[in-house]
Amino acid sequence: MATPRYVAITQRKQAELDAAIPKEWRLSSDLIPEGMLSISQSIAEPRYQRVGVMEIPRTCGILTARELELTEKFNIRALVGEMSEGRVKAEDVVRAFCKRAAIAQQLTRCLTEPLFDRALKRARDLDDTLQRTGKPVGPLHGLPISVKDTFNIKGVDSSIGLSALAFKPAQENAPLVDLLESLGAVIIAKTNIPQTLATLDSANHLFGRTLNPLNRQWTAGGSTGGESALLAMRGSMVGFGTDIGGSIRVPAMCQGLYGFKPSTGRVPFGGQQNGQIEGKGRIGLQAVAGPLTRSVADINAIMAEIVPRAELFGEDGIPGLWSAPTAPRNFTVGVLKTDGLVTPLPPILRILNEVAETLRRTPGVEVVEIPLPSALPKCQGLAGRLMGVDDGSHMLDLIEGMDEDLIPWLQGRMKRGKALDVVQLAKLQGQRAEVEKEMMKMWTRSSDSRTRHIDAIICPVAPHPVPEIDRYNAVGYTSTFVLLDYPAGVVPVRPIVESDLEIGREMQDPVLGSWDKANRKLWDEKTVDRRVYLDSPLSIQVVTPKQHDYQLFQAMELVDRAVQGGTSPSAKL
Amino acid sequence: MATPRYVAITQRKQAELDAAIPKEWRLSSDLIPEGMLSISQSIAEPRYQRVGVMEIPRTCGILTARELELTEKFNIRALVGEMSEGRVKAEDVVRAFCKRAAIAQQLTRCLTEPLFDRALKRARDLDDTLQRTGKPVGPLHGLPISVKDTFNIKGVDSSIGLSALAFKPAQENAPLVDLLESLGAVIIAKTNIPQTLATLDSANHLFGRTLNPLNRQWTAGGSTGGESALLAMRGSMVGFGTDIGGSIRVPAMCQGLYGFKPSTGRVPFGGQQNGQIEGKGRIGLQAVAGPLTRSVADINAIMAEIVPRAELFGEDGIPGLWSAPTAPRNFTVGVLKTDGLVTPLPPILRILNEVAETLRRTPGVEVVEIPLPSALPKCQGLAGRLMGVDDGSHMLDLIEGMDEDLIPWLQGRMKRGKALDVVQLAKLQGQRAEVEKEMMKMWTRSSDSRTRHIDAIICPVAPHPVPEIDRYNAVGYTSTFVLLDYPAGVVPVRPIVESDLEIGREMQDPVLGSWDKANRKLWDEKTVDRRVYLDSPLSIQVVTPKQHDYQLFQAMELVDRAVQGGTSPSAKL
Repeated sequence: MATPRYVAITQRKQAELDAAIPKEWRLSSDLIPEGMLSISQSIAEPRYQRVGVMEIPRTCGILTARELELTEKFNIRALVGEMSEGRVKAEDVVRAFCKRAAIAQQLTRCLTEPLFDRALKRARDLDDTLQRTGKPVGPLHGLPISVKDTFNIKGVDSSIGLSALAFKPAQENAPLVDLLESLGAVIIAKTNIPQTLATLDSANHLFGRTLNPLNRQWTAGGSTGGESALLAMRGSMVGFGTDIGGSIRVPAMCQGLYGFKPSTGRVPFGGQQNGQIEGKGRIGLQAVAGPLTRSVADINAIMAEIVPRAELFGEDGIPGLWSAPTAPRNFTVGVLKTDGLVTPLPPILRILNEVAETLRRTPGVEVVEIPLPSALPKCQGLAGRLMGVDDGSHMLDLIEGMDEDLIPWLQGRMKRGKALDVVQLAKLQGQRAEVEKEMMKMWTRSSDSRTRHIDAIICPVAPHPVPEIDRYNAVGYTSTFVLLDYPAGVVPVRPIVESDLEIGREMQDPVLGSWDKANRKLWDEKTVDRRVYLDSPLSIQVVTPKQHDYQLFQAMELVDRAVQGGTSPSAKL
Repeated sequence: MATPRYVAITQRKQAELDAAIPKEWRLSSDLIPEGMLSISQSIAEPRYQRVGVMEIPRTCGILTARELELTEKFNIRALVGEMSEGRVKAEDVVRAFCKRAAIAQQLTRCLTEPLFDRALKRARDLDDTLQRTGKPVGPLHGLPISVKDTFNIKGVDSSIGLSALAFKPAQENAPLVDLLESLGAVIIAKTNIPQTLATLDSANHLFGRTLNPLNRQWTAGGSTGGESALLAMRGSMVGFGTDIGGSIRVPAMCQGLYGFKPSTGRVPFGGQQNGQIEGKGRIGLQAVAGPLTRSVADINAIMAEIVPRAELFGEDGIPGLWSAPTAPRNFTVGVLKTDGLVTPLPPILRILNEVAETLRRTPGVEVVEIPLPSALPKCQGLAGRLMGVDDGSHMLDLIEGMDEDLIPWLQGRMKRGKALDVVQLAKLQGQRAEVEKEMMKMWTRSSDSRTRHIDAIICPVAPHPVPEIDRYNAVGYTSTFVLLDYPAGVVPVRPIVESDLEIGREMQDPVLGSWDKANRKLWDEKTVDRRVYLDSPLSIQVVTPKQHDYQLFQAMELVDRAVQGGTSPSAKL
């Protein structure tokens, strides 16, 4: 049998990836847990054992004490302040983060394109400019950032894990890349994604599987999984992903991070490789770009710079202010406990109730229960159909043309479909308009449908805790808010503790359908050892009405302050 | 030969229309110019002779002196003020406008659904509420308004001139109707449109042809032609139309009115009958709703109430403020003289130059020439293709099922096409994104593509003056700004005078293509007597970047003040 075409390309890419990590940044082999030695290791291997690698950057000796401090002690505004005011050189900051990203890569396979050399060169240029002019280059001067592999950077591959697209460097920057660089940010790497971008793990033949640094038994999530693993290990200050079914929010949840899926138009989306036919987002479901961070303050710091500039960089950007249009008043939070398709597992309902209780005790906050809107159960199916309006050939041609197998999770799930005709497509969009219209009532009192009553809702990110690899179940809780174009963010709350494992020994609610049935298996002691979830992050989703992105940040901040009581959640995990 | 199916329905509709006008509001036959006696008169009749009917409401004796004053002396805010403060009864105002609308109907066939009885009842209810509570019902308390026939009003037909849709009253109000009524406005009529809504005249078998009250030789424009004829005759205070190829702006131009085509999301669009497959706008080109008025102040008065409420009424509404986000500074106006496809005829270029000169003399205004953007000539074709993504069967089935002929202008132009497949459709939308991206440069200096330099552009509404009926030529100057989602408005400037007829005796520029060739015939003395244009309104179009709707109002106000020198333009015509 002839060698599959992708093999040589994969070997060349792996060699390039290895070569990007200088010798002095390489971990000694005894620090790398067994089963993670080779970044080209098979993605089809059996389930991993519990191993966390979060402490290794601190203990491996590669970062100096100062570098550990630079990567751990600052949020975005503080770090930029240090550099802009000349107290720290951008080069030193960028080197510290590059080192840490290199370590993260060796432990989690989170990167696709390390850009360490160009990042260091750019940092030196920034330092020179500051030195020469006395002024920082922009409001993100020197900030080390990372982007999902989909975003084009001139001269760098956007292979999205497909050998068919490797060694075909992009001709120009994505508008978001231009925007971030114009602000003084420094891109230190692009990050890993799943084959086809359409799974909620992050595994492909070119770059392998991204592992969750908290515990490689858990999925890192996807499709922005490399970004979340890198960020959790503090290998970057902020990561940019994209989200159509949950691809920012799911990996944020899996690593206990903050993820922010804006409304369309807030963050320039264009200039990405996604392996789909050109223009598909405009006729089906439009993905959006947004940040993952380690704090709500960092969401604010980054969105405050992007949102007012989005219209100047992307043809898909709209004008926007990053501020509240009206004076603050009492804040009303709605609690939405189910999407009507999949009943959240007991620990998910528990955390939602805990957060609701905490909010009830928060001055100035009113908490109300949201009855299941009758249109909500229609959303998951509609979103799914709008993601698949064509026959999917374009992606499969790329994969099959290089003799690549589908990754295990996609086998049996990904096949050539039947494209819709325009009348069917228009009808689907018409149904979406109906659903949008019905969903408007969720935000108002039944007695007065013309005054907004609910400022934000809280709901699950997923109906289950962070699962083992390849066991992520339903995307309805996330894809729904892309369908509706509601901004939606993830706030980590606390880890699962022993007592959480005791609840729901017998789930009494009637099974709602196949999705619900599959979901229950994730908590059913006959099919899973619940102890696998111990210490995994529990998060909630916060959602505001369409285009109310600043209000989403406000709501996330409110929830975060209430539940965290001032301590950093990732420090807890 | 059997009687065509539509005939009986048309007769019934005509009888209903006639019956809606009380005897005492009927014009004596000697006041109705010949050829306008029957509202069911054939729409295929030969060209009309010059006849204007603007003076008849003042001279016919049907309106009292007080009613003439109520319909002529107030702008929106002043008139609402009179009613809200109890100086004038809403019933008296509404009756005055209903009378005037009835007169307009007899002279121009501008109405489809007179709603005089319900309007008067509602006005009395408003008066009662004010009397009882001491407070007006809303910020548009008692304001007489009218809407294009497409907008659903519960219990009223939305036939859009098709017998197939007649006598099928709407089940619920369009969100815009709900919004306007919640503000206290009173809808006194729905207004005429062309068969298929896809021509720039307003003629159909059910309601006949709307005539231009300035001069029935000129087209009234379309597809919101009934609205503009009614408004020009002061039969309504503000009219709502829709615009995909120019259907607000073209009739505004033809009657010397102000037309405002917003960006998507500013005015709720849903709940309309357009004879198209459901959801088509979301996959092809999305039409928008907006107002026609007799002054810029009235644009402001109405949009200030709608824009902040759009998101609460329509699922297609987005949050928005009706105010400037940044402090005022010098205003830069770009002058765009051609779309690169059709060279504007000499009087159109002259009026554009006149306005530019006037603006140059205006303190605080900078005027710059805009070189033809290379992407601009692609817009007309792209917009056209995105309007016709399906095969058009739905509309043609409605027409042919009732044995209706196509109106003369559509014969040979309207046929069943071939629907795109989703890959072709996605590709078109991809091309649109490219065009949008290239067009962003129009607003910046070539030296700095990241700072907006141009606040607004002025350009032609059409490349020709108001033409005779059925001779409207190219829609590229209007459809382009729907494709790009740029808000665009029409400001009337002055009538054509004798000296305008002298210019361009020989047009020297090379012919650009078939559209350009057809356009020249409208000024070629071998094919047209230029004197037909004498006294017709010359207007310009004002355009701002995507979603900058308030800035469009500001720019229109600036242009209007500069060119009108304080007098009302419609008074000049």
